Amino acid sequence: MKKHIFNPGPSVLPEFTLKNTAGAVMDFNNTGISIMEVSHRSKDFESVLNEAIALFREMLDIPAGYSVLFLHGGASLQFVMIPYNFLNRKAAYLDSGSWASKAIKEAKLFGEVQVVASSKEQNYTFVPSGYTIPEDADYFHITTNNTIFGTEIKKDIDSPVPLMADTSSDILSRPMDVSKYGLIYGGAQKNLGPAGVGFAIIKDSMLENVGRPVPSLLSYKIHVENNSLYNTPPCLAIYACLQTLKWLRELGGLQAIHKINLEKSRMLYDEIDRNRMFMSPLTNADDRSVMNVVFVLKPEYAELQEQFLELAKSKGIVGIKGHRSVGGFRASIYNALSLESVKVLVGAMKEFESRS
Amino acid sequence: MKKHIFNPGPSVLPEFTLKNTAGAVMDFNNTGISIMEVSHRSKDFESVLNEAIALFREMLDIPAGYSVLFLHGGASLQFVMIPYNFLNRKAAYLDSGSWASKAIKEAKLFGEVQVVASSKEQNYTFVPSGYTIPEDADYFHITTNNTIFGTEIKKDIDSPVPLMADTSSDILSRPMDVSKYGLIYGGAQKNLGPAGVGFAIIKDSMLENVGRPVPSLLSYKIHVENNSLYNTPPCLAIYACLQTLKWLRELGGLQAIHKINLEKSRMLYDEIDRNRMFMSPLTNADDRSVMNVVFVLKPEYAELQEQFLELAKSKGIVGIKGHRSVGGFRASIYNALSLESVKVLVGAMKEFESRS
Repeated sequence: MKKHIFNPGPSVLPEFTLKNTAGAVMDFNNTGISIMEVSHRSKDFESVLNEAIALFREMLDIPAGYSVLFLHGGASLQFVMIPYNFLNRKAAYLDSGSWASKAIKEAKLFGEVQVVASSKEQNYTFVPSGYTIPEDADYFHITTNNTIFGTEIKKDIDSPVPLMADTSSDILSRPMDVSKYGLIYGGAQKNLGPAGVGFAIIKDSMLENVGRPVPSLLSYKIHVENNSLYNTPPCLAIYACLQTLKWLRELGGLQAIHKINLEKSRMLYDEIDRNRMFMSPLTNADDRSVMNVVFVLKPEYAELQEQFLELAKSKGIVGIKGHRSVGGFRASIYNALSLESVKVLVGAMKEFESRS
Repeated sequence: MKKHIFNPGPSVLPEFTLKNTAGAVMDFNNTGISIMEVSHRSKDFESVLNEAIALFREMLDIPAGYSVLFLHGGASLQFVMIPYNFLNRKAAYLDSGSWASKAIKEAKLFGEVQVVASSKEQNYTFVPSGYTIPEDADYFHITTNNTIFGTEIKKDIDSPVPLMADTSSDILSRPMDVSKYGLIYGGAQKNLGPAGVGFAIIKDSMLENVGRPVPSLLSYKIHVENNSLYNTPPCLAIYACLQTLKWLRELGGLQAIHKINLEKSRMLYDEIDRNRMFMSPLTNADDRSVMNVVFVLKPEYAELQEQFLELAKSKGIVGIKGHRSVGGFRASIYNALSLESVKVLVGAMKEFESRS
């Protein structure tokens, strides 16, 4: 049975990425060597890295004056790197979810952290708004998409200080105005590739703001100077990211995928709103994530949770159990998740309603 | 033509590892999902992680009271983690090569570093000996195998303070007495798996020595408490490591592979010593690495370097060009490199001698 993979991350990847990566594990570029065996200093691998960087630039229309990095450690390591490099006096953070909260925890080890707004007390059911970004902050940190709670900041906001954005779960899902950011970063394991590699798009002028000695592997400057080759990079993971970027270009780039993503999310939210058994736990419909669609059973049907999970499973649907901090269901509908898979889920919701 | 992969790292892996990993990229455990798509919180993946940890324990005969971790970032991130966690007053380091030197550089950011001995002035042509380990150091750090210079500490040394060993390039090549170490760590990309994952075997009592607040992703304690699942681990890379560990067990474990490794290295060193054109640049034959066999042309033949590389290439030999800081040649003969490949290289050396 075909599986419909709604996993929150690691998550569904294009068949193109899977096939080419499996092929390269056996024989990379007809070299007779696996992508796991090839030297990261070889011309063959440097081409992979440089092509991935070039495609990242092309897809997001990254302007001159920015560097693209592939790094170890996922977004969590960058929760540490950002304050280590850039928190000299005070940093401002928006607390819009549990990943934001983890980033804040790490920053506090390095200096003063001003949380400009938080929706924690309301279990992160909305993205805080109406806050003021302090002009004396070294930077302002946001999480564009809250994977767990299903909220998303879908616009590029204006900030008087460098804007640092964890975009782990919505990178490459829509066009962005990169020029508004000091740093765009994340882990690859949603829209890009497997777990085990992160990315950073950093404004080069940020590197002048580093105010303390930084260990080499945590230094954006060292990674920029070494084109992500300061130490051995996760070659296989970068190769897989390149395949996804090629797939995305072939599909028509971010304008095209954004249109598809909006259609997928609209279809699912429409069903949640229509179906008498389900509801969205979010306070504000404007905050609804295009990537992670969180929904719950209405209180009167709450005891049917396991039954819906069983029905979904019988349709080949995988990974829709909600995070324990929210409960209910979460359909992660990243770039590679097909419209067909969304239709199967919507069909299951309709069937559940008619059966109950 | 069959390739003989003498790459220093990433490097040759068992065919068993390549085939199973390529298979799991397409379909992991008959789940219909790729190992790149599966949730790291799923039972299927946790089994992979736990089996890899159990096999690591079995292979190295790791005693109770030690934890095994799979971590992001390779050895280089642990160059930072070690002093961040454990350098409270003063640490002692042995400077036996460029990786040791990089570890020392990072440690200096966190406290006093006493270099007990160094062979840097002699271009690391030997492993320093006759030094004294200060009893007031928080720990003593060594690099067991110097990939670039081809020297190796082949015995478990005695240390009055916790012994921390970067074993990136000789882990699992021979039995070790783990009980003599506070920490054994490294990157996976030599004897274990692809680049993009590191390992740590840490004595649990070390975790009581942490003297400052440590960021989550750099904290051994947090990784131990979360069984390497504090953040999303590099699932595919860990899966590949598990395959290599299975291959190693099937082969007979560390006693068996050690015997084969000694035979491979003896065969190659014997040829270097016998052949009138080649020589070892090392000062002390006792230091010769069983993993990285470094050799150069004798001064009178030095201009023939490119010709030997050409001849080697014609035999399918890959990756034997020496590191720029040594010159000459380096044959990295890790666990997965076959005796047959060593014979091909020895044959090329003999042919080169007879032709010249």
